[in-house]
Parts: sequence; structure tokens; C-alpha cells
Amino acid sequence: MEKTKENVFGDGKKQKAGRVVEKPTNPMVTPLLNDLYQFTMAYAYWKAGKQSERSVFDLYFRKNPFGGEYTIFAGLEECIKFLANFTLTDQEIDFVRHSLPCCEEAFCDYLRGLDCSDIEVYAISEGSVVFPKVPLLRIEGPVAVVQLLETPFLNLINYASLVATNAARHRFVAGKSKLLLEFGARRAQGPDGAISASKYCYLGGFDATSNVAAGRLFGIPLRGTHSHAFVSSFMSLDEIVDKALRSSDGKTTCEDFVSLVQTCLSKIQSSALSGIFSETNKSELAAFTSYALAFPSAFLALVDTYDVMKSGIPNFCAVALALNELGYKAVGIRLDSGDLAYLSTEARKFFCGVERELNVSDFGKMIITASNDLNEETVDALNKQGHEVDAFGIGTNLVTCYSQAALGCVFKLVEINKQPRIKLSEDVTKVSIPCKKRTYRLFGKEGYPLVDIMTGENEPPPKVGERLLCRHPFNESKRAYVVPQRVEELLKCYWRGNAGEAREELEPLKEIRSRCIKQLENMRPDHMRRLNPTPYKVSVSAELYDFIHNLWLNEAPVGELH
Amino acid sequence: MEKTKENVFGDGKKQKAGRVVEKPTNPMVTPLLNDLYQFTMAYAYWKAGKQSERSVFDLYFRKNPFGGEYTIFAGLEECIKFLANFTLTDQEIDFVRHSLPCCEEAFCDYLRGLDCSDIEVYAISEGSVVFPKVPLLRIEGPVAVVQLLETPFLNLINYASLVATNAARHRFVAGKSKLLLEFGARRAQGPDGAISASKYCYLGGFDATSNVAAGRLFGIPLRGTHSHAFVSSFMSLDEIVDKALRSSDGKTTCEDFVSLVQTCLSKIQSSALSGIFSETNKSELAAFTSYALAFPSAFLALVDTYDVMKSGIPNFCAVALALNELGYKAVGIRLDSGDLAYLSTEARKFFCGVERELNVSDFGKMIITASNDLNEETVDALNKQGHEVDAFGIGTNLVTCYSQAALGCVFKLVEINKQPRIKLSEDVTKVSIPCKKRTYRLFGKEGYPLVDIMTGENEPPPKVGERLLCRHPFNESKRAYVVPQRVEELLKCYWRGNAGEAREELEPLKEIRSRCIKQLENMRPDHMRRLNPTPYKVSVSAELYDFIHNLWLNEAPVGELH
Repeated sequence: MEKTKENVFGDGKKQKAGRVVEKPTNPMVTPLLNDLYQFTMAYAYWKAGKQSERSVFDLYFRKNPFGGEYTIFAGLEECIKFLANFTLTDQEIDFVRHSLPCCEEAFCDYLRGLDCSDIEVYAISEGSVVFPKVPLLRIEGPVAVVQLLETPFLNLINYASLVATNAARHRFVAGKSKLLLEFGARRAQGPDGAISASKYCYLGGFDATSNVAAGRLFGIPLRGTHSHAFVSSFMSLDEIVDKALRSSDGKTTCEDFVSLVQTCLSKIQSSALSGIFSETNKSELAAFTSYALAFPSAFLALVDTYDVMKSGIPNFCAVALALNELGYKAVGIRLDSGDLAYLSTEARKFFCGVERELNVSDFGKMIITASNDLNEETVDALNKQGHEVDAFGIGTNLVTCYSQAALGCVFKLVEINKQPRIKLSEDVTKVSIPCKKRTYRLFGKEGYPLVDIMTGENEPPPKVGERLLCRHPFNESKRAYVVPQRVEELLKCYWRGNAGEAREELEPLKEIRSRCIKQLENMRPDHMRRLNPTPYKVSVSAELYDFIHNLWLNEAPVGELH
Repeated sequence: MEKTKENVFGDGKKQKAGRVVEKPTNPMVTPLLNDLYQFTMAYAYWKAGKQSERSVFDLYFRKNPFGGEYTIFAGLEECIKFLANFTLTDQEIDFVRHSLPCCEEAFCDYLRGLDCSDIEVYAISEGSVVFPKVPLLRIEGPVAVVQLLETPFLNLINYASLVATNAARHRFVAGKSKLLLEFGARRAQGPDGAISASKYCYLGGFDATSNVAAGRLFGIPLRGTHSHAFVSSFMSLDEIVDKALRSSDGKTTCEDFVSLVQTCLSKIQSSALSGIFSETNKSELAAFTSYALAFPSAFLALVDTYDVMKSGIPNFCAVALALNELGYKAVGIRLDSGDLAYLSTEARKFFCGVERELNVSDFGKMIITASNDLNEETVDALNKQGHEVDAFGIGTNLVTCYSQAALGCVFKLVEINKQPRIKLSEDVTKVSIPCKKRTYRLFGKEGYPLVDIMTGENEPPPKVGERLLCRHPFNESKRAYVVPQRVEELLKCYWRGNAGEAREELEPLKEIRSRCIKQLENMRPDHMRRLNPTPYKVSVSAELYDFIHNLWLNEAPVGELH
């Protein structure tokens, strides 16, 4: 996404060492999108003369969401865009000054000069499958500046990764062959929730979105037809004034498409298919006919405004048959209520009946889209029951991550002035892993990832074919030898201040999406299953293990028994 | 919020009939923040010559969130800002054209001329307590334009109302006297999720936010101190170079505040309070001392990095005592882990002990802030157990509305070309209430609201002191006579196209917040309780009831038994 074109808001970009990085997608992502305490701390560091002390922070999460054993990492591009354009305007500085309990003028000068030219960010590639405790980002730089990145980074990564993971889980349960459409704009948590959801659901394996802004910003395919209101806005066929429709090949014009539709409806009514319905709703027929006149080559109708089988399906078929006579192929239907397994099956039977009785080839292959409060569980239940749905439109549950609305990424100091730091806690899962680290993914014979391992920065990397001890970071007895068949270093440099040339390019969304899909396919199936998945192993080297536990003993207070 | 100053992004504003309405807070709120089907329908309406048909839509929800019996209405201001500035740019129109399956050039001309000058919006005042089925907004205008408002309006209202309601529920359980701080920026669903959350939590009764951008945009009070990283970034007291601190009255300077702190710590250690601790953590003491040097008049310390009672509290007290000697008053502490009931009680005992043993007046009144994964339930549990917390910092659960991540507002056609429209459904709760309506809130003798009633547009309004039959919209047997002591019309005009003078002013956030707090206090307590609250009654007039049910019978398909 590093290109020269302007972003949609016509904003400029900041030039860094010959490479241009666009501004964040949302103009509200500024250094003030921050907790006040990042500024109070910056002031306190500055007062103590500590503001430039070199520090290393890890950004990671502690637990996979949705009861699963994997997470998709997303949001990196927006973080890099944020720091590439990090600067405080005079008005922003003025606001910060007035927000602090006290503030010397010289601190404002310090803020005025701040940017991320002295920051280094190593990260796992966006779209990767990731696991708890392993740093997604390692951020190094002057402590006051790095802390100012904490809140924006967490904000940009937490939801992005959560919703991308949710999308991947929906894809997993729906299967590869189904079309997955994100329909969440109206229920998302705010405008940005909607636009981010569209982006990261696409990244996580969805095929398209209904959100026009997201389609425009990210090049995501768009989908959408009409609503119930469109259907009920019509009263009768008499409303349709312009009834002419040119044939698909442009050679003839049907002067009265409305009559043609009515003829087709009569054909159905007088065929063997007539059993299940008598009179269909005429305002619905008018709406469908109108919609087909507007989009003869892309006719897709919402068929449940009145009654799916008694009205919607026969009306749809009448219009689809009329289109067929003019050389067009209707796309299909959308079901937005009721028993989707039953209705999709009945609809399919009806379409196949039309194909058979009225001799219309491929009519049975109409695309059936379903879209009523769907989520992982309902899609799974539909699969178990059997259905004829080809495409799922998923909104609320997907974009708000209804079953778990937040991911808990944290941002922890692991080193300052070359001194390792550890955050202790009575809850062992909350103890941080100290030191500036490297991380590797080790692959086994069958090509699956076996284990992620963290090492100290200066340890030699694991080698293919060489036996290596992988230790659980906190549980002494959990250890395993691994002979990796392939070793992949996970953290790559995505930002190195002024030395722009020495870092990874930001990738187009489609490439990130491909990585995600490919890595998911390459996971051992027992990690991926919905019920009781096997945890993927995350480990530290023997050397790092010893180091952590020595430091722990040094830092922990010794209790006194009285 | 209608003023002449520029908004923070320096954007212009659109002039409407002599009144200026600012742009939406988030520049991403444009007409493209829309489902594609609003544009496909606009095209189909336009093709059918129906685009200007006068239509009325209701925006309402069907069920209160969080298992409660009330909802706070929020998001109206942003909707009005959106429609006041509604216009499609040439580039946006170009994108729409390419997104539609087919599109005549003349439709682009139509889109080019679109604005909301022919739209009328009636709404309940923002910050009101509202109930299911009663329209929050009634939007009237050309059908194609009104439908283009559906997705943005739902997006702007659903989350705003949900999170404001969540905030109000947290306020209810915490009680009036506690300070409630919103700390959600890092876990919110995207940047806008964070900024909207801060705004609407304040509206719903919170006192302050940690989010600097929200503080700046909306004038919300800001709060924040320091994190664990700040504490662990210090290694020892030797790091502190500039040790001088001038006294509060400016008359004297303590040249070595670090020594003063150490002396104070010794005093505590040699007092009757020494029982529970021996050596405190020195890097923590260095961090606290440094923070106090930066903010002597606003010293608030996070005390759980190492061990609250063995290290954090004694260290805090040492620094607070040293500040006290120079005429400053420390603010208090923050607890971010562990058993908050126990720790807050122990901390209070210690503070009172210092007050007593060392004779420091008011030391026992230190403010204790708690902030570890709090939500309605944990605050309620703390209250039941007994605690000494004065301020709650609430993040994830509050802003992501973890216990219910979406509100289901819908947008239904109720009239077109003066013809009433009804959306039927096998699920009675999903049947829409047709007609352009008026709505009233009727108050009883004790001043509480008794019932909301919807009537046809031209029915005479309910009168104070006159008996009135209120009917459940769908349940024949549920009826009640009411003699209102006060009648309040709920829907007021907030937008009337070009006739800008004839509408309500948008109010400052503080006034909206006051309305919310006042209305909540004025509700009958049984509607508000957390366990088994009584549903508030929502009704229709006898005349509207009959009308609905006649229309229903007309529209519903008659089944056939074979």
C-alpha cells in the first residue's frame, strides 16, 4: 500500500528516507488517540531526564479468542502508517499542555520535535496465524515515544485481529466453496467499526462486503441487492410505466416486460409446480419486475417480505423466466428470515422443478443467499441439518464479535537501557517474558508448524535438522525436543526510523489475505477444530528459560511469616 | 454544538437556510458509509420513476439491551450533522457508477444533485430514556434519499445508544457518589469505537475519560496517571538527578526530595504500621518519587506493580508524606489487580493508620481508584462485599459492550404516497407499526412516566386529566385506561430541509448528559432494578390499533389447506 497516490481524504503524506507511507485510513488516528497517562508519563520521563532511554516493548495477547487455539494478526499496516506520520500539531500540543496537571513550556518544545525517526518496529507479517505470548510487535526506541505508541497500536491491532479471527472461523465452518459476504455496517460499533470490519473480514477470508466506503478504500468486492422496504414501497404492477426491456444481445426489445412476467407466472401456475401456491403478492411482483428492469443482468431478489414459498419464490421465478426469454440469466434469491435449512431446500426443489417442467437449463443452479442473524453456530447447525445455501451474508455477530467483543493485547516493557524487565503477577499467565527477543516458527516433517520458540536476541537461531530443546516459559516440567525441518523467523523489521530502505514493504491487502488463507490451510487440523482444539505450543529456549527464572527470583518480594 | 468555529479537522461546513451545521465528528461518515443495496435501490427507484415518492420511515429497536427494561437514545447529533452535509462528490459518484451492475449516465446526474433539503426528521431528544417499538426517529422524504440515510443512521445510533445505555447501567450499580472513569481506548472496536465510546459513556453518566482525543473533541474531563511500565522503567533512586522540589506556597525549596521521601519511609517503618512490610521495592519508590517531582500537586500512584501491601502502599505513603511536608496533598492510588475489595479496605486502613500514627490530617481520605476488568457484575459484587473504592476505571467491558455487543435498531417503511405500509413477519415482535405517527409520554400522579403511546398523525393529542385507552399494539387483551397528569410529545423536528429556522437546536453534550441523568432519576425504580425489572408499557391509541389490524388482515396471505 505504499504508493504515490493521495488517500481518499486528499491528505498529504510524510516523506521518510525516500519512501512514502500514506496516512492512517481514519483521519482520527492521531497521537491524541491516546490515554492521557501516556502524556503524563512522557512528562514525568522528561522531567526525570529519562525520556530518551532506549527501551523495548512487546505487544502480545495472552489468550486466543472465541474458545479457539489460533488468532489472525491484523492491523499492522495501520500502525506503520500511524508512526510514519506521527507528529503533534501546535494545537494538539496546546491541548496536551492544558490537560496535564502542570507542564513546563520546555516540554512543549520537546513534544514539538517528536517523531518516530528513532523507533524500530519488528513485527510478524500481517495476516499470519499467531499464538499467545509470542510478540506480534517488538517496538524499540526512546521510552517516552514508545509509550505514546501503546494506546494507538493496541487500538489498531486488538479489534483488527479479533474480527479477522472471527472471519477466519466463519470461513472454516462454512467451508471453502461457500461465498461469504460481510453485511455488518449498520450494527458495527461506530463508522470505523464498520469500515475496519469490512477490511479485516476480507483479510480473514470473506469474499465481499456490502460496505461501499470499504469497497472504495480497500478494493474489496461489493455485494448488495434490495431490502424489504423496496418490496413494500410498491403497490401494484400498474405503477411500472416504462415497461420496455432490450434483450441481452441488444437485437430485440420486449415492449411490455410486465406482461411477459405475468405470462411466465401463469406458466408456472399452470405447471405441476402450482401445488404450493395460489395467488402471489402483486406488490412484490411489481417490485421484482421493477428491479429486473433496472438490473436485467444482475437480478437477485429478496423473497421473504410476504411468504417465501407462496409468494416470493414463484414471483422470483416468473421474473427470472421472463429475463431468460430475453437472454438474461437471473442470479438468485436472498432469504432473510425463517428456517433457512428448510426454505433453501424447498427453494432449490422449486428451481429444479422449473428447470425440469419448463425446460430451462441451469435454472436449478440459482444462487441462494441466506442472511438472518447468522454466526458460527448457526452456520454449523445448518451444515449438520443439510441446506442449499450457496452464500452467507453475515452481519451483527461477525462485525461486533458478539461471542467475544474484545481481544486483550497488552504492551509490556521487556528491556530498558539494556536491562531486562519483567512484570510479575500473582497470576502466572500475566507474567511478562523479559528481554529483547527473537522468535521462530519450527515446522515438522509433514510441513505443519510444530512450535513457536522465543530466544534471547543474541542466541544462535534454531537450525534445520538440529535437535533443540523447547521449554514452556513458566512450567518447569513442560519440555520437548524438536528437530525442525524448516525454520521461519517471525519478527521482521517493518520500521527503522530514518533508514527506510532497510525494512519490509507494506503489502497490498490481497497479498495479506492470501497469506492468511494459506497459513490457515497449513495448520494441523486438530489445532483448528471448533470443539476441544489442541493448543499450539509456544516455548522459550533453555537459555531464555533460565534467564527468566533467575530474574523472577531476583524481583519477587520474599514473604515473611510472623 | 451549532457554532461557527471550525471542527478539529479544519473542514468546512455546509450552510443551510442561515444555520450552519458542523460536519460529522468522523470524516469517514460520508454517503458511501452505506450498504451497496441502498444505491442499487436508488437506481431501481430512479429507473421506475419512483425516486421522489414521499415516504416515511421509522427508526426503532425491538428489545432493550443487557436484559434491562430501558435504553438511552444517543447518536442524533451525528445523524443531523451527516444529513446537513449530505452530498456526493464526483469521485464518489464515479465509484458508485462502477459498483452498480449497470448504470445510466443520467443517474449520475441525479446523484450529483442529491441533498437532504427535502427531508424532514422528527426525533426524540438525545439522551432520553427510550423504549422498544417507539420511533426514535421518523424520517420523511423522497424514498430514494431516505433509504440512503438508513445505513449511516443505524450505524450512528446503534452503537451510540448501546454504549450510553451500558454507561447508565454502570452508573446505576456504582451509585451517584462514585467517580466513574472510562478507560477503554485500547480495547475498543477501532479508533472511532474508542472516541464514540468516550462521548457516549460521558453522556450516559460517566465523569471522565482517559481518551485525549475525545477530551479535546467533546470537552470531556480527562483522567490518567501512569502505567506499570513507568514503574518498571526505574531501577533505583540513584537515577533521580534533579532532586529539588519547591514547596506548594513557593516560599521554600527542598533541595533533596529523594532523601525526604526516604526519611518519611523510615518514619512509617518505625511506626506501629511496620508490621505488614519489611523492605519495599526501591525501583517502585524511585518511580513514585519521580512522578511526584513531575506532578507534586496531582500525585496519584499505581501501587500493584510488585506487591500492594508490602511495597506499593508504604512507598506511596512515603512519597505522599514527603509531599505533605512541602504543603502538597497527594491525590491517591490506583489498584489494577487482585482482590479489590480486600486491597481497598487494607489500603484505607493503612491510610487511616498513617493519619493517626503520624498525625497527618485527611490522610485517610486518599482517593482509591480500582481498574481491573470491571463491569456491572463485578461492581455489584464489590458493593455487596464491602470496599473502599472511590473511583472505578472501566474499559473493555464498558466500551465493547461485552455482555451484548450490538443493539438491533431497524429502519422500516411505514408510509409511501400517503399509503400506510406494514412489514409482516411470522414473528409478531418483528411486525412493524404502520403509518406516519405521533408519540407521547404520559406521566402519572407521582411524576413518573407511566406509558408511551403512539397515535395516527392526525389524531388529537392526549390531554392532561382526560381518560385515555392505551392498547398493546399486538396483544388484543392488553389494554389500560390512563388519566395523564402530564403529557410530553416525544418526536420533535430536528431537520426540516431548507426551513432551518423551524427546528430544534442541537444541544451541547453537557445538556444532553443532564437530560439523561435527570430522566433516569425520574423513572419508577422497578423499571430500573437489575434483577427482573418491570417492563415499561408502550402502547397505541385505540384508533391506531384498529387501523393496524385491518391493514394486517388485508396484507397477510390466506393459507390454503389441501
